[in-house]
Amino acid sequence: MGEVGDGGEENMAAWLLGINNLKVLPYKLPPLGPNDVRVRMKAVGICGTDVHYLKTMRMTHYVVKEPMVIGHECAGIIEELGSEVKSLAVGDRVAVEPGMTCGRCKYCKAGRYNLCDDTKSLGLPPIHGSLANQLVHPADLCFKLPDNVNLEEGAMCEPLSVGVHACRRANINPETNVLIVGAGTIGLVTMFTARAFGSPRIVIADVDEQRLLIAKSLGADEFVKVSPSIEDLDQEVEHIKKAMGSDIDVTFDCAGFSKTMSTALNATRTGGKICLVGMGHNEMTIPLTSAVAAREVDIIGAFRYKETWPLCIELIRSGKIDVKPLITHRFGFSQEEVEEAFEVSARGGKAIKVMFNL
Amino acid sequence: MGEVGDGGEENMAAWLLGINNLKVLPYKLPPLGPNDVRVRMKAVGICGTDVHYLKTMRMTHYVVKEPMVIGHECAGIIEELGSEVKSLAVGDRVAVEPGMTCGRCKYCKAGRYNLCDDTKSLGLPPIHGSLANQLVHPADLCFKLPDNVNLEEGAMCEPLSVGVHACRRANINPETNVLIVGAGTIGLVTMFTARAFGSPRIVIADVDEQRLLIAKSLGADEFVKVSPSIEDLDQEVEHIKKAMGSDIDVTFDCAGFSKTMSTALNATRTGGKICLVGMGHNEMTIPLTSAVAAREVDIIGAFRYKETWPLCIELIRSGKIDVKPLITHRFGFSQEEVEEAFEVSARGGKAIKVMFNL
Amino acid sequence: MGEVGDGGEENMAAWLLGINNLKVLPYKLPPLGPNDVRVRMKAVGICGTDVHYLKTMRMTHYVVKEPMVIGHECAGIIEELGSEVKSLAVGDRVAVEPGMTCGRCKYCKAGRYNLCDDTKSLGLPPIHGSLANQLVHPADLCFKLPDNVNLEEGAMCEPLSVGVHACRRANINPETNVLIVGAGTIGLVTMFTARAFGSPRIVIADVDEQRLLIAKSLGADEFVKVSPSIEDLDQEVEHIKKAMGSDIDVTFDCAGFSKTMSTALNATRTGGKICLVGMGHNEMTIPLTSAVAAREVDIIGAFRYKETWPLCIELIRSGKIDVKPLITHRFGFSQEEVEEAFEVSARGGKAIKVMFNL
Amino acid sequence: MGEVGDGGEENMAAWLLGINNLKVLPYKLPPLGPNDVRVRMKAVGICGTDVHYLKTMRMTHYVVKEPMVIGHECAGIIEELGSEVKSLAVGDRVAVEPGMTCGRCKYCKAGRYNLCDDTKSLGLPPIHGSLANQLVHPADLCFKLPDNVNLEEGAMCEPLSVGVHACRRANINPETNVLIVGAGTIGLVTMFTARAFGSPRIVIADVDEQRLLIAKSLGADEFVKVSPSIEDLDQEVEHIKKAMGSDIDVTFDCAGFSKTMSTALNATRTGGKICLVGMGHNEMTIPLTSAVAAREVDIIGAFRYKETWPLCIELIRSGKIDVKPLITHRFGFSQEEVEEAFEVSARGGKAIKVMFNL
Repeated sequence: MGEVGDGGEENMAAWLLGINNLKVLPYKLPPLGPNDVRVRMKAVGICGTDVHYLKTMRMTHYVVKEPMVIGHECAGIIEELGSEVKSLAVGDRVAVEPGMTCGRCKYCKAGRYNLCDDTKSLGLPPIHGSLANQLVHPADLCFKLPDNVNLEEGAMCEPLSVGVHACRRANINPETNVLIVGAGTIGLVTMFTARAFGSPRIVIADVDEQRLLIAKSLGADEFVKVSPSIEDLDQEVEHIKKAMGSDIDVTFDCAGFSKTMSTALNATRTGGKICLVGMGHNEMTIPLTSAVAAREVDIIGAFRYKETWPLCIELIRSGKIDVKPLITHRFGFSQEEVEEAFEVSARGGKAIKVMFNL
Repeated sequence: MGEVGDGGEENMAAWLLGINNLKVLPYKLPPLGPNDVRVRMKAVGICGTDVHYLKTMRMTHYVVKEPMVIGHECAGIIEELGSEVKSLAVGDRVAVEPGMTCGRCKYCKAGRYNLCDDTKSLGLPPIHGSLANQLVHPADLCFKLPDNVNLEEGAMCEPLSVGVHACRRANINPETNVLIVGAGTIGLVTMFTARAFGSPRIVIADVDEQRLLIAKSLGADEFVKVSPSIEDLDQEVEHIKKAMGSDIDVTFDCAGFSKTMSTALNATRTGGKICLVGMGHNEMTIPLTSAVAAREVDIIGAFRYKETWPLCIELIRSGKIDVKPLITHRFGFSQEEVEEAFEVSARGGKAIKVMFNL
Repeated sequence: MGEVGDGGEENMAAWLLGINNLKVLPYKLPPLGPNDVRVRMKAVGICGTDVHYLKTMRMTHYVVKEPMVIGHECAGIIEELGSEVKSLAVGDRVAVEPGMTCGRCKYCKAGRYNLCDDTKSLGLPPIHGSLANQLVHPADLCFKLPDNVNLEEGAMCEPLSVGVHACRRANINPETNVLIVGAGTIGLVTMFTARAFGSPRIVIADVDEQRLLIAKSLGADEFVKVSPSIEDLDQEVEHIKKAMGSDIDVTFDCAGFSKTMSTALNATRTGGKICLVGMGHNEMTIPLTSAVAAREVDIIGAFRYKETWPLCIELIRSGKIDVKPLITHRFGFSQEEVEEAFEVSARGGKAIKVMFNL
Repeated sequence: MGEVGDGGEENMAAWLLGINNLKVLPYKLPPLGPNDVRVRMKAVGICGTDVHYLKTMRMTHYVVKEPMVIGHECAGIIEELGSEVKSLAVGDRVAVEPGMTCGRCKYCKAGRYNLCDDTKSLGLPPIHGSLANQLVHPADLCFKLPDNVNLEEGAMCEPLSVGVHACRRANINPETNVLIVGAGTIGLVTMFTARAFGSPRIVIADVDEQRLLIAKSLGADEFVKVSPSIEDLDQEVEHIKKAMGSDIDVTFDCAGFSKTMSTALNATRTGGKICLVGMGHNEMTIPLTSAVAAREVDIIGAFRYKETWPLCIELIRSGKIDVKPLITHRFGFSQEEVEEAFEVSARGGKAIKVMFNL
């Protein structure tokens, strides 16, 4: 584990020191292990969870107790190889998968390493993140980018992975009509992926018309503006069904409210699936039985991601997904720019993805 | 469709004429189609839904508007074959699957005929049931019983099918530790089936100690008495986990309350499954996100059954399941006995399955 | 079942009377059942099996013993509805699924109706086919075409269904690199479907360079010309792997020789799948153990199709698949044209699909 | 990696020095890593592959080039813990999973670590095996035995794992009628597991009546003696089908000859599965198309095992499987006994499993 200071100007990092207190300070890298690589960071995106840590120093049961380098959506260029690393070369441009899992528990062995209880992940307390000039990371979590995929696109593989994992779990294919509830970043990457997986028709619903217009411009077939009020549920479900024009096979709830999950339960066809993505409200009041027990609508969850980087890179390389329109703001890596970038990201509005170019 | 009266004494049936008004009256059978058989009914069980119709003349959106013959858990002896029937012979003892599905919709064609929107099922309004001396029914829904399976056991294939369908959907196997919440008839048949599917450890929870003792005597490894109050949730989940002694892979909620589903969500291991069986409360307030989105606990539903009779018969034949202890009361088919039988069934208590011998 | 003659000029049909003896003669339609429709045939394609029946009067264990109307790839316009038909209207343009299955066997009930032992299918002896002016057929096997899908494309849903069923069985998706061995009609429809299901890279191999050039022009990423000799196996497998440039996840053997299956076994990656499509040689000499037992390369089969028409129509409608380039020849329905069309189809060469416009 | 000699009498091992040259000599253990344990070996079984190495110094492409300690079916008692090991304690009795996989390749990450190309496994050249007084091994590959499972049973988890992996891949459950072709050790452990997974009916076929009688005494419902001649195929398939009395859902070919796979292809029902287990002949001449392409009989392979130890231990603990009757001979660990034990194992006949008690 690295420490504050002592790293010289060669490796500066964005340290989370307290609530709304983020400082660019030197960061001494941990030693390079035999299976690690050292990466010169070039593109790092701001995630909603990064903002959440900055505002509250915590996220669910993860609490920032010591100064911590923030950030985990990133890509860069290999500068040094551990002694055992054969799959990469110095100079390779790589996208970085942030989570390091134990490899020994039953989830890791069963191929569900996203559920490993012992995951250490960049920028997830107490593990330092990647908003820094350099990163030491396991080589098998660094994925070489093809020539036509740039480093910002490489950094976007992290949020895109959320959509890919969700669409894999829900088995989206050319026969799946998809409803997405929530047009934030997760809703958009899920929409991109559902399309790339062949979904013939995608309808998206949100309370924010601005977001819906963006979603439409980025590929949704139809959108439906909904209200936060549960009283509008039945009418809205009718609007949504009409917008789809045929059975809704899978609904992604990318918002996580009683209202959005109720919409999902009532809109999804008999025998269909609902996939809950992202951390919404925990306690929900929802009409479960009439959908789940009486119509075999299954509810599945999507947590983080596993083995998604190669596919994300291929989807971007082939042009099946274009993540560039999601990058709405770019900043350098000075103290002032870091502060401004987080402010822009926190403000929301037209900002979707805020990206640092280091 | 048959009619009241006109059938002579040869075919008497239990007609539901109004709330708490059940009369044994003649029933004129519908004509025998080329793929039908005529069955002399010998054993008919009372289901909770039969009692519900008798008390309220309705169940969810199914309403009894015309006099209807009640009953659907049944077995009997073939007396006549339709002209095209080759798979059965007069004299065969058969268990009867009650649901007739359309065969043409996408659910039927995809092998999920339990979800067919056009299902006509014995004793489900407006379709006449099987608590009668005779039944005309499609031959492919009548399953020959082996010599060592009696007609009452044949009738028990219907409730047992609910457990079989649930355990198939939840993929119970020799690696699945099972929690069952709710020790009523559905909980018990699910327990029997989970054991027959190889579950190494089954814990059952209920608010009724009497039921739990029965469940224990019928094969549960452990039981936990719980309260209806949500305030006891955390403590009870701890008790349940301790009673299991290892991960709970699958939980069957056979009760359908906010409390029972909350128990399921908090008790089931990361990456496990919850299967909701039977019609409980529709609106539930439950901690969904922390289980589904953060731990990939999936919630699946089990509605009715499909292709379960051959397996039920095999499980009974081989002795892997013994349904006989569930039959707690037996009655003949006079007006008085029918009334008394339904009273006993409605009263609950020690009554599990009430069976008519016709 | 209809009969030769007696139909008047209103319904002429192509009757297979003996080896190389195909005559356009009147055909009296069977009566319209309550769930049937009467379709005015507009487009009928010639399948390899039709040619095979014409040349030999048999195909595997199916033998033409009585005069039989030939043909089963077809589309037309609804002219009359059975009394119970509600899903279609007179004037609807429909593609026709030829197989009528029993609906009562375990395969039908389990959603694998393509394996029904009691299938009656158009043009499969002794069932009359659809190369006729009119057809009486179950309504649930007639699928309405959208405005932008023409009747020839409707008829192409039958061969396309073979590719769809194969790609579904092999679970082709955006992560599946595909090798196709055999560039005949089945190879081409499988290639189209694999692409539509998201396959990022498709290599096709055949002994005929002409076919390979067609396949390349229709979307293959690379092709490899191979020989019929088993001696070239190792070298060709190297060429194929090099052409793929990464792991071959799934191989479709659309030819069915010892050589092609050996190629599949040696080329497919550890843990990958081989799907055998179409009726090739039965007895094969192949290196099974080193692939199946030592590397868990699974071999699956694809027989006919099930529930494929809606997806075929959607893939054509959306432009994800363009079947029109496969239609290389068109004929009218006179005796002379029928004879010529079958000659063209039998000759092969540049002819892929020969289509009748009735 | 340890070396010959230098270990003192405290750690003697059975060194394979050349063809038919096995010597008990000192073995200096490799150092104990932080995640390793040191195990005092108590029970080690002889596997057919051990005998094969002794006779030929090779197995497929694995060649013994340097002196190597033999053995991989083993169990013992923990004597020392690496600094990071928390899941085990000194004195624990453990069964040992021999294969150490890379944890970084796509197969490891996808939960198919048995397919890892970089597997290092006990007694698989050039990795030293476990027929020695002591073993240093990763803690996560050592599984604590319950009180009622002895160390010999612990060692039997390795061969049993082959059956478990095969039955998992073939999805054996209470609805699967099983044919096993080949009644050697692999056939027997597959039979045990199929029964434990719920198979209602198991028929076993072999050329050796002695073996069949043993299989019958250990639980087969029926057996059929077959010949090695392909000319008897059709008649034998009839005998086998008659012995089953209903559809054969899954066939395990545990022999791996053209004849046995032909039997599997012709005997297995439409839509069923064949699982090829163990290393038989590579080149086979078999009727593939009529089963795979025309009846969707799928052929799957089972290679080694993954995550099987906990289930094996549970199946033995619960009494669902009794492996003790397979242990037919026991030996101590002197030079003479080691030589005699391998002779007995090589001779076959009534010897099934030969076990060392160290």
